[in-house]
Amino acid sequence: MKLRVTIMPKPGVLDPQGKAIAQALATLGFAGVTDVRAGKTILLDLAETDPAKAEAAAREMAQKLLANTVIESFSVEPA
Amino acid sequence: MKLRVTIMPKPGVLDPQGKAIAQALATLGFAGVTDVRAGKTILLDLAETDPAKAEAAAREMAQKLLANTVIESFSVEPA
Repeated sequence: MKLRVTIMPKPGVLDPQGKAIAQALATLGFAGVTDVRAGKTILLDLAETDPAKAEAAAREMAQKLLANTVIESFSVEPA
Repeated sequence: MKLRVTIMPKPGVLDPQGKAIAQALATLGFAGVTDVRAGKTILLDLAETDPAKAEAAAREMAQKLLANTVIESFSVEPA
């Protein structure tokens, strides 16, 4: 089954990529952009078909490899 | 209102980052990973409060700046 892992910088962690995007949007004339945060999406296609087991496996992958949990938080959802 | 823009490589477009993650997961002992695709998540906080207008604005931002629509597809959803 397919799962989506979304990895974002934790609140309070500096996000220079997000800041750069916000500035670029302002330069392009987009007004009313209050905040931008830039993160990653990893789409996993797992052989596991049991939703609970697949989610547990994806969480372990995120903990061990995909996310840097010191500065990033992640969420796992069905894709 | 907050919107989530998800940007992924289009099907058929080579995704070396996804391939590298799949290989690293295999090396770490995670079996049954059929496919991995790596993309971006941009969280936008817009001053606009009307959901339809905010989504239209986010789509325009994705078209013009956030995504490279030649090789990437994007989706916009409320966050």
